[in-house]
Amino acid sequence: MTENKKIATWKAWTLFVVVLAVVFGLGLFAASMLERRAEVVSVFNNKKVDIAPGEAHNDVFEANYPREFKTWTETAETGFRSEYNGSEAVDVLDARPNMVILWAGYAFAWDYTTPRGHMHAVYDITRSLRTGSPGVEGGLTPQPSTCWTCKSPDVPRLMQEMGLKEYYAGQWGNPAWAAEVVNPIGCSDCHDAQTMDLRISRPALREAFERQGKNIEDASLQEMRTLVCAQCHVEYYFRNNEAEDKINYLTFPWDNGITVEAIEEYYDSYTAETGKEGKPYYDYIHALSKTPILKAQHPGYETSQMGIHGQRGVSCADCHMPYISEGGVKYSDHHIQSPLANIDRTCQVCHRESEETLRENVYDRQRKNDEIRTRLEAELAAAHIEAKTAWDNGATEGEMKEVLSEIRKGQWRWDFAVASHGASFHAPQEIARILAGGLDHAHLARLALAKVLFKHGVENVKIPVFGGKEEAQKFIEPSIAAKVGTIGQMEKNKSRFMNEVRPEWIKAAKASGKLTMEGLE
Amino acid sequence: MTENKKIATWKAWTLFVVVLAVVFGLGLFAASMLERRAEVVSVFNNKKVDIAPGEAHNDVFEANYPREFKTWTETAETGFRSEYNGSEAVDVLDARPNMVILWAGYAFAWDYTTPRGHMHAVYDITRSLRTGSPGVEGGLTPQPSTCWTCKSPDVPRLMQEMGLKEYYAGQWGNPAWAAEVVNPIGCSDCHDAQTMDLRISRPALREAFERQGKNIEDASLQEMRTLVCAQCHVEYYFRNNEAEDKINYLTFPWDNGITVEAIEEYYDSYTAETGKEGKPYYDYIHALSKTPILKAQHPGYETSQMGIHGQRGVSCADCHMPYISEGGVKYSDHHIQSPLANIDRTCQVCHRESEETLRENVYDRQRKNDEIRTRLEAELAAAHIEAKTAWDNGATEGEMKEVLSEIRKGQWRWDFAVASHGASFHAPQEIARILAGGLDHAHLARLALAKVLFKHGVENVKIPVFGGKEEAQKFIEPSIAAKVGTIGQMEKNKSRFMNEVRPEWIKAAKASGKLTMEGLE
Repeated sequence: MTENKKIATWKAWTLFVVVLAVVFGLGLFAASMLERRAEVVSVFNNKKVDIAPGEAHNDVFEANYPREFKTWTETAETGFRSEYNGSEAVDVLDARPNMVILWAGYAFAWDYTTPRGHMHAVYDITRSLRTGSPGVEGGLTPQPSTCWTCKSPDVPRLMQEMGLKEYYAGQWGNPAWAAEVVNPIGCSDCHDAQTMDLRISRPALREAFERQGKNIEDASLQEMRTLVCAQCHVEYYFRNNEAEDKINYLTFPWDNGITVEAIEEYYDSYTAETGKEGKPYYDYIHALSKTPILKAQHPGYETSQMGIHGQRGVSCADCHMPYISEGGVKYSDHHIQSPLANIDRTCQVCHRESEETLRENVYDRQRKNDEIRTRLEAELAAAHIEAKTAWDNGATEGEMKEVLSEIRKGQWRWDFAVASHGASFHAPQEIARILAGGLDHAHLARLALAKVLFKHGVENVKIPVFGGKEEAQKFIEPSIAAKVGTIGQMEKNKSRFMNEVRPEWIKAAKASGKLTMEGLE
Repeated sequence: MTENKKIATWKAWTLFVVVLAVVFGLGLFAASMLERRAEVVSVFNNKKVDIAPGEAHNDVFEANYPREFKTWTETAETGFRSEYNGSEAVDVLDARPNMVILWAGYAFAWDYTTPRGHMHAVYDITRSLRTGSPGVEGGLTPQPSTCWTCKSPDVPRLMQEMGLKEYYAGQWGNPAWAAEVVNPIGCSDCHDAQTMDLRISRPALREAFERQGKNIEDASLQEMRTLVCAQCHVEYYFRNNEAEDKINYLTFPWDNGITVEAIEEYYDSYTAETGKEGKPYYDYIHALSKTPILKAQHPGYETSQMGIHGQRGVSCADCHMPYISEGGVKYSDHHIQSPLANIDRTCQVCHRESEETLRENVYDRQRKNDEIRTRLEAELAAAHIEAKTAWDNGATEGEMKEVLSEIRKGQWRWDFAVASHGASFHAPQEIARILAGGLDHAHLARLALAKVLFKHGVENVKIPVFGGKEEAQKFIEPSIAAKVGTIGQMEKNKSRFMNEVRPEWIKAAKASGKLTMEGLE
C-alpha cells in the first residue's frame, strides 16, 4: 500500500470503531428504556391482590405497590423541616403568642402546631384541643363532621353510605361515626383503587369547578398531579344555607377567582348564612374587638398557582413527590414533604445551582416575608386590644364601623398569607403584596381607633408583649371563658377523652375490621 | 459476494456516509466560528483612525466601530417604553402629584420626568428646572458641578485637567466649564479608547470598592459588563467633609453593604457634614414636615444585585445590550433600553416562553409593587401635611421627634424602591419588602402624629387630593417660595436661559472644537 492508502485505511477503521461505539451506547440506552417499560407492565400484570373500588384500608395496597406504600409509611416521621423553621414540630402559638390574640374567639387560639405527615392525619385531629372532648362530661363538641373530610379515605365511603348532605350535617366525634374514620390520608384519597389512575375523591373541588363552568374530568394528567392535592390544600368554608338545604357543607369560595381579593369579595357578598341573616359571611366574632373575622384555611393550591412554578405548569407532585429510580423502576416518592429534603431530586432536576445556593434562595424568600408578617401580627394584635378598650370605654357601633372593617381586611390578608404552607416560596412577591396590604389595613384600623379612643378620653392603651402561649391565653381567657370555659379545663377534658373515649373508638374499629393497621399516632 | 458479505459492505458504506455528513457539518460550524473570529480580528486590524486615550468626541469612534456607533445613536429615540408605563416619556410629577409633596424643599419637586436615552444626557440636565438658570438675572444656580459627573465623557477629561477635588467643588453651569461638558454619555465612558477594553472612568466606584477592601481591577469581563453601568446607575451622595478637604465629593454609601438598611445605617451614622455638625446626614430638610430627608438617587445596580438575575450572574449588558449577528459579526447592541423591546434577543435567550407570557410576567411584577407604592406615597404625603399642621399648632421638637424619625425611614424606603429603574422586575420581592417597610414607617408616623395633633387640639387634618402637578406645586409654594421663588418664576428664568445662555455655551464649544456632532437635544 502507498502511504496515502495506509492513512485512508486507518481513517476508515477509526471512523468505523467510533460509529460502533456510538451505536452500542444507543443500544444500551434503548435497552434501559425497554427494561423500564417492561417493569411497569409487570407491576400491573403481577398484581397480587384485587382491590375493591374506594378501598379505605391503606395496608391492602402494600402487596401490589410495595415501593409507593413504603414511602407513604415514611410520612409517619415528622419529615424534613427547614433549618429556617427549626428541626422539630413547633407549637406555633408559643413561638408567636400574638396569634392567640388574633384568634381569640376561635378554636385556633387554644391549640395550633406545625403540621405533620399524612400518616398522622386522624390522630392529630383527634388529639387537638380544637376538636374538644366529645363523650366526656363537660367536654366541648365544637366541630362539625365536615372537619373529618380531608383526614381519611374512610370519608368518601361514609359520604356514599349516608348521603353527602347528611354526612356534612353531623357532629365531629359522634360515637356512631368515630369508629368509622380511622385510616389516615392514603391511597384511595388520590387513586382509583383498581386502575391507580389519579382521581378526585372529594366533592367540593369537583363542585367548585362546576360552578366556574369547568369539568374537572377534562384535566390533563399533569394538572391532576396538582388537583388531587387541591382537594384539601385549599381555602374553604362550611356553607350553611337553608334554601339549599345545606348544613356545614364544605365549599370552596372560588366563584370570583382564587386571589385574596376575589375570595374576600365572595365572602363579603355572601349574606345568606343561616342564623346570621343579612350580614356578610364570617367565621367568628372576635372575642376582644367584636370584628366579624374571616378565618383563612390553608390556601396552598391558590397561592402556588400565583407563583412562577405554578404559572409554568410545575405540579405539586413534581417537587413534593419526586421520582425515584430503583433498578429499572421509576416511581413517585410518596413521602410527601418539603422539596428541600431532596434538592438533588427536586430543584436540581431543572436548576443547576448548588444545594446550598438553592436552599439559601428559599430561606431568603421566607425571611423577607416573615419580616412583614411579624410586623403585621403585632399591629393586628394591638388593634384587637385597642378595640376592646374602645368598647369598654363606651365606643358606639357607628364609631367602630370603620375600625372593624379595617381589622377584618387586615386579618384576612394576614391569615391567607400565613395559613398557606410554603406560600413565601411558591409566590414570594404575591405574598409580600398581600402582607403589605394587610399591614396597611391594620394600621388604618389603629389610626381610626386612635380617634375613637381620644373621643372617649383614652390617650394610650398599653399593648402587652407576651412571653409565650400561656401568657397570651391567660390574657384572652376572661373574654372567652363564659362561652367555652378555660384552656385549663379544656386540657383536662382532652386528657380524659384521649385516655377513655378514643381507645373505645379504636377498639370498635378493630372489632369491625375497619382498622387493620397499627401505629398511627 | 455472499448475501452476508453484501449486507456487511452496504452497512460499512452507510456508516461511512453518515460519518462524512457529520464531519462535514462540524466543518461548516468550525468555518463559521473562524469567519467570526476573522471578522473580529479584521475589525481591529482595519482600524481607520487612531483614537487618543479618553477621547470625548463620540463621533470619532464611528469610522472604526460603525455598528456600535450606529446603535448608540439610536438612543436618541425615546426608545421602548412598556405599555404598562405608557408609550411616551411621562411627566412623573403630573402623573403622581403626591411626589411633589414628598420632595417639597428639594429641586425634584420642581421638575421630574421619565428618563431618556444616553444621547440626551447633557441636554436633559441642561433643560431641567432642577439645575436652575445660571447666567440669567435672578436665576438660581442650585447644583454643584458634581451633577455633571455622569452626563458626559468630557468629565473624566476635566477631572484630569483640573484635579478631582477641584472639579467636584465647582458650580454646575459655571461659564468656564459649561462649554467643556458637551458630548453626551458615549464611548469613552465605558471603553478604553485604544483597546476598547471595558474601563472604569469614574473614580467614585473605584473608591467605593477600595473602601470595601476590593480592587475593581480584579473584576472579570462578565462583572465589568455590569460594573461599567454601576459607575452611574447607583445610590450616591455629595460628601462635604472639611477634615478630608472634600466639597460635594461624589461618594457611594456602600461601606456597610448595599441593602436599603445598610445604606440607611451608613447615612444615620455619618455626622461630619460641613455646616451640619452633629447631625446625621440628610439631603434636605422637608419644607412642610421639617424632616431631615434622605433622597435616594437611582440604586439600579444595588437592587439588580438583590434579584435572581443578578444573583445568577446575569450582567446588565446581557439584557440591556443584547448581541446582534450581522453576517459573520456578532456585536453588542448599544441602543441601551428595556429588554422588553427585544424579547427575542433578551429574555428568550434563556427562557422558552412566548413573548406575550414573558412581557405579562414583567408587568405583573410591576403592578404588584405599584399597588404598595401608591399607598405608600399617599400615606407619606399625608404625614408631611399633618406634620406641618402639628408644627403650625405649636408642636414641640420633643413631641415631633418620633414622627420625623418615622417619616425619614418611610420616605427613604419609598425613594430607594421607586428611584431605581426596573427594580420591581430586577428584585420583585425585595422591592415589595422595602415598600412594605416604608408603608409601616409612614403609618407609624401618622399614628404618632394623631397623638401630637390631639394634644394640640386638632382632631382632623384635611388631606387634599391633587389633580396634577400644578395643584400640588401651588400647595407647597408658600413653604418654598421664600427660599427659591415660585415655580412660575423658575420656568420663566429657565426659558430665558435656554434661549440666551445655552446657545452661547454651544457656540463656544463648537468654536473650541470640543463639540463636533450635532443633534443632541
